Amino acid sequence: MERVKARSLVLAATAFSLFAVVAQVQAQAQAQAQAQAQDAGAPILLERQGSFSVGGADVSDEGGATQSCDHGYVEYQIPADARALPLFFWHSSSTFVWQNRWDMGEGFQSLFLRRGYPVMLWDGPRVGRANWGCDSQTYNAMAGRDQQNFTSWRFGPAWMEWFDGVQFPTHNRSAFDQAMRARYDEFDRLENIRLEAAAAVEAFGIIGPSIVVTSSAGGMRALLAAAHDGQIAAIVAYENPGFLFPPGEGPGTADSPFGPMQVSEEEFARLLTIPMQFVWGDNIEASPVWSAKLEECRQFVALINARGGKAEIVMLEDEGLTGNTHMPFADLNNREVAALLDDFLARHGLDGR
Amino acid sequence: MERVKARSLVLAATAFSLFAVVAQVQAQAQAQAQAQAQDAGAPILLERQGSFSVGGADVSDEGGATQSCDHGYVEYQIPADARALPLFFWHSSSTFVWQNRWDMGEGFQSLFLRRGYPVMLWDGPRVGRANWGCDSQTYNAMAGRDQQNFTSWRFGPAWMEWFDGVQFPTHNRSAFDQAMRARYDEFDRLENIRLEAAAAVEAFGIIGPSIVVTSSAGGMRALLAAAHDGQIAAIVAYENPGFLFPPGEGPGTADSPFGPMQVSEEEFARLLTIPMQFVWGDNIEASPVWSAKLEECRQFVALINARGGKAEIVMLEDEGLTGNTHMPFADLNNREVAALLDDFLARHGLDGR
Repeated sequence: MERVKARSLVLAATAFSLFAVVAQVQAQAQAQAQAQAQDAGAPILLERQGSFSVGGADVSDEGGATQSCDHGYVEYQIPADARALPLFFWHSSSTFVWQNRWDMGEGFQSLFLRRGYPVMLWDGPRVGRANWGCDSQTYNAMAGRDQQNFTSWRFGPAWMEWFDGVQFPTHNRSAFDQAMRARYDEFDRLENIRLEAAAAVEAFGIIGPSIVVTSSAGGMRALLAAAHDGQIAAIVAYENPGFLFPPGEGPGTADSPFGPMQVSEEEFARLLTIPMQFVWGDNIEASPVWSAKLEECRQFVALINARGGKAEIVMLEDEGLTGNTHMPFADLNNREVAALLDDFLARHGLDGR
Repeated sequence: MERVKARSLVLAATAFSLFAVVAQVQAQAQAQAQAQAQDAGAPILLERQGSFSVGGADVSDEGGATQSCDHGYVEYQIPADARALPLFFWHSSSTFVWQNRWDMGEGFQSLFLRRGYPVMLWDGPRVGRANWGCDSQTYNAMAGRDQQNFTSWRFGPAWMEWFDGVQFPTHNRSAFDQAMRARYDEFDRLENIRLEAAAAVEAFGIIGPSIVVTSSAGGMRALLAAAHDGQIAAIVAYENPGFLFPPGEGPGTADSPFGPMQVSEEEFARLLTIPMQFVWGDNIEASPVWSAKLEECRQFVALINARGGKAEIVMLEDEGLTGNTHMPFADLNNREVAALLDDFLARHGLDGR
């Protein structure tokens, strides 16, 4: 039996301006001093911004009445003196995680705008601001999702037991409340995954070649899009659980929404043409689920490279970054994580203007 | 019987960059030359941006497992040298309509950032990026929604029959496709309306005093929030169908999600303390539904002013603006609509830094 309990945001009682909310969330953060120094930079110079829908279909009845539906939604920002290739951010929980650091400092959206990259935030079909789908959907609230997020996102091994040195402001109740609410409905079914990948392919047809940066289950969707289209210039996937294999390769299990999925030889061959980086945070060994997914990642990367592709794995711990969660780009040390993305983009010549 | 038909976005075949998509949508627009001249201004100077959740509750089971839910989502942008009061944009269809003009020129989000206002885009609880609700929800696709939007938004009196001189790029197929997709799920039930208003009250507790700018059914939600809290500095409501009346006043019909709703004398009295403007587009007389709603608006404004409040009605046609739809802020002449908002803000001293 479930009950609903009203809970005021802790912030509300004490903070009376937006600057105050940011300051209050930051107040207890470990990286506060450093973050404030870095955030207090020059303004972002924004050439233009807006949003558009892409892809989609419609339902109609025999009288010709219609509903436009199943499109995805792109929120775009283009900085002044922009670089040529945009970063297309593909979440698996909420755009919140690209917009903010856990302590409400700047997320990758702003950090990479400051670097001159056009930035796109993507809600795929049936997700968030694109939930005007062509099919019926039922959403059910479910007690236990907070606890599931806590361990899946590797804040700690069990609910409210934090990993030592985790890159989250663990004593900041407001930041934790924000994290638990950084989620909206997504239907992890194979049909929806294919739909999202197909809509993204249409997005790249409009946007042009793009660097796709993914979180969690966004990764397999991006791989599927790349397997069907040549407009993806590169993929950087943070903690992607789902990989594509051609017939006879991989774990050989049935297609699953969290991977693996089987693709044709022709589709797999497209993945050999672009640089791909798979980034993993800390404490993987404490999670049987993520340990198994990392193993699949190694299998995938080995196969890609054996066939002449350009895939690599980055274990953040090996780069000297410790305590990273499932969402390194939102972690307290996200500027160091961003610096590694800079390296990747420069190394592959993806940072030109 | 409904069928799903894949339909490529017209844009996709011919446009290969984001600038191209914008240019292509603009290509046939009536206001093209003017718009391009005005859009080609200096970059927007953005001090910071991000998003946060506000309000909400949780569901839990007897074992203590939880899901955080029923919060709203605020996407905020703060320009350099910002004015004191933010504009809080409350849609009833999609944030798209605040972000873009129908021809993909700048929407109010960017226009008012350029003027120095902090800008907030609001997805209330259970809407868009805040659809992680505490209750179950079922969404059903339904043929006929495009046709309903066409007439409700007063593009014309009947499907694909445009009003003469309507402020929409009527021959631009891409712009029309974008408009039909500028929508996501919202549940217009009294329970949800109260929930959205309550979450907004919590948002103002964090943000501080705000100017609330609403579209359509967002209007009554904002009035409800103002009736419960003193942090709303002003309301500007574009084509609001729903009004609040104290006992014994108004049409005397039962509470309805599209208005009216009854409030206590004490709640109604709070509405007397803030300036309110109700803006209406063109061709109202061609729509029995909107004619009736305008009549209710007049009744509400008369009552507010009879009791010492500060409410006014702006008929855009009387200001020399013709052809405006249900969403004047997204119309081709949205810069002229914005200039009227400037006047209102200046007149009430709401534009200070």
